[in-house]
Amino acid sequence: MRSKYAESGVDVKKRGIECFRSILNNLFPEAFCVISEDPNLPGYGLVTHTDGAGSKPVQAYLHWKETGDIRWFKGLAQDVLAMNIDDIICVGAKPINFVDYVAINPLRVDKIGLLKILSSGFEECINILGAQGVKLLFSGGETADLPDQIRTLDIAATMNGRVSLSRVLTGEKIEPGDVIIGLRSGGKTNYERNENSGIMCNGLTLARLCLMRKDYQEKYPEILESPDGKRSYYGRFKFDDYLDELGMTVGEALLSPTRLYAPVILKVMERFGEYISGLVHNTGGGLTKCLRIGRNIHYIKDNLFNPDPIFILIQRESKEPWKYMFENYNMGVGFEIIAKTEAASDIISISEKYDLETKIIGVCQKSRDGNKLTIKSQYGEFQYP
Amino acid sequence: MRSKYAESGVDVKKRGIECFRSILNNLFPEAFCVISEDPNLPGYGLVTHTDGAGSKPVQAYLHWKETGDIRWFKGLAQDVLAMNIDDIICVGAKPINFVDYVAINPLRVDKIGLLKILSSGFEECINILGAQGVKLLFSGGETADLPDQIRTLDIAATMNGRVSLSRVLTGEKIEPGDVIIGLRSGGKTNYERNENSGIMCNGLTLARLCLMRKDYQEKYPEILESPDGKRSYYGRFKFDDYLDELGMTVGEALLSPTRLYAPVILKVMERFGEYISGLVHNTGGGLTKCLRIGRNIHYIKDNLFNPDPIFILIQRESKEPWKYMFENYNMGVGFEIIAKTEAASDIISISEKYDLETKIIGVCQKSRDGNKLTIKSQYGEFQYP
Repeated sequence: MRSKYAESGVDVKKRGIECFRSILNNLFPEAFCVISEDPNLPGYGLVTHTDGAGSKPVQAYLHWKETGDIRWFKGLAQDVLAMNIDDIICVGAKPINFVDYVAINPLRVDKIGLLKILSSGFEECINILGAQGVKLLFSGGETADLPDQIRTLDIAATMNGRVSLSRVLTGEKIEPGDVIIGLRSGGKTNYERNENSGIMCNGLTLARLCLMRKDYQEKYPEILESPDGKRSYYGRFKFDDYLDELGMTVGEALLSPTRLYAPVILKVMERFGEYISGLVHNTGGGLTKCLRIGRNIHYIKDNLFNPDPIFILIQRESKEPWKYMFENYNMGVGFEIIAKTEAASDIISISEKYDLETKIIGVCQKSRDGNKLTIKSQYGEFQYP
Repeated sequence: MRSKYAESGVDVKKRGIECFRSILNNLFPEAFCVISEDPNLPGYGLVTHTDGAGSKPVQAYLHWKETGDIRWFKGLAQDVLAMNIDDIICVGAKPINFVDYVAINPLRVDKIGLLKILSSGFEECINILGAQGVKLLFSGGETADLPDQIRTLDIAATMNGRVSLSRVLTGEKIEPGDVIIGLRSGGKTNYERNENSGIMCNGLTLARLCLMRKDYQEKYPEILESPDGKRSYYGRFKFDDYLDELGMTVGEALLSPTRLYAPVILKVMERFGEYISGLVHNTGGGLTKCLRIGRNIHYIKDNLFNPDPIFILIQRESKEPWKYMFENYNMGVGFEIIAKTEAASDIISISEKYDLETKIIGVCQKSRDGNKLTIKSQYGEFQYP
């Protein structure tokens, strides 16, 4: 059976990156992010990382068109920051600075309004991080007017981090017996203002198509590409439909900004870094992202959180098989810490101080032939790859 | 009179950047690029810069669709590299590494084919730069499948450079009497393989619309955005029409990769850095880009190169007033070195060793109220701003 997601036009398996392998300057090919040499700082690696907000800007555009309220774009600032900062900390790096890249269709989008609200979003994130001891500088970026390429808008960022070469977290030290500690993507930490749906920044294409009503694509043809007329929005909901099961509107759930885990993780690393063998940010690839690090490790995840209601809703509406749901979405676990058992309760108690729900969700076992993952859930038992 | 370019949906004046001013970490606000502090290297600044290939990918897409040859995308690799490296060297920085960001519509574009040819393009540039003593590392990047945002494809890159804080070229030392040395954007240097049209990476939206035939937009509606039906391709040419005046096909002229000036400029800086008061990469804003640096300087450009044939053609076909042509396009001068008179002939002779046509195109005078520019050309005399 083919994934609904693949049918929707998005490849979550990222086969494209192989094409660049031969020219890559990467000191630690096994690590979660590329680490390059730094000519002026021989003992340190530079982690230069790029990621975007996926198709979340399309959902924000829809809300803006329906309400006239430019603030619906604000959360995208946190999305692109989180997508980058929480990736680079996975190799043990500390963030330095970032730039943004905003490509827009100026014939559709209020550019100045958008840039002002993004600036305010970046400022808020920089302040939240700063208050938690994480310094991050903004170094500008680019806004490109590309009416013939961009239907509405696209937002990405590039972030630099730095890591001492003697302290890189490559994942090589992950051993059978290590526990997998899961940090929730939903809920509300004490450094956040609002309840989060947990959706983060991946899986939005399928989520939009299966939840939002077809009326929208008729009203705003710019929010859909359908060369053969087969792709369409096929949902039952308006963006502002409040659902009891979500505790928010469908649109709010889809636009919940990606959680910033950096304050928690950097604190955990500072206190218990020596007990940590791997860090995984569950973005593209969802709960299978851990397969990217470690050597011959069989990850068993048998004590997951109940998936946040947005994931249940997406599955119910799209009929995406559960096996793929765990591959497309974080399913409630946004970040994983792979650590020695003896440190687990201390790590969990640090995380809980931020009101971030955290628990042991599984364990590492030995595999004979490469990395593997078994998910045992109330929806069935699944093997990856 | 309004510029044809503004009508075409692109703002060359970049008013958007002001929106981010308040959160910017910039040690030298007057310099050509943002320079941020670097926490681990106190005496050095980090220059993190993002720029894209503009709408050149649309032209490449058209060639690919018409010919089936994926190699038409290759030059875009050099375009995004040049757009970044030749900006960061303007503050006296040396490049470190870069990442790419490729956003595509996977329903239209052969992703794997595209990524492979871009990888090969990057490799070639890295090798050309390396052979000229300019080391540049590739640190990966992101490929995003965004069918509902990207009509065809968009390509950008982010580059890091580093500069000693005591050697930053801020432009503050530009004085009346300094000469403006212009480096051609067209022709062929001895480290390049092919003759270049000189177009670089700016002004492509107007160029495409005024040169390419309307048939193309009917055949490939994905290459045009026209919410009200008013925008359209209105040119007389097919992409493969050979024009004697260009010495190449119209499509080749539009896709000529942006020249890499870094080998020449870094050599000039090494030898005559003390005589250089400003460096300007003539991208968005064309020949008016110099207005961005210097204090109360009146730039007089009265000895420009004859604009390369592609610029003459674009003007003839679009009827863009000449005043705006100099604002939208580099008009034959891709890079400017502002230097003390006594070093001019030495600087020119270094540049000419690369077979890069170079000459004094003007001079700096005193202005009483901010920076000004006067262009005296065979097409008239124009004042900016």
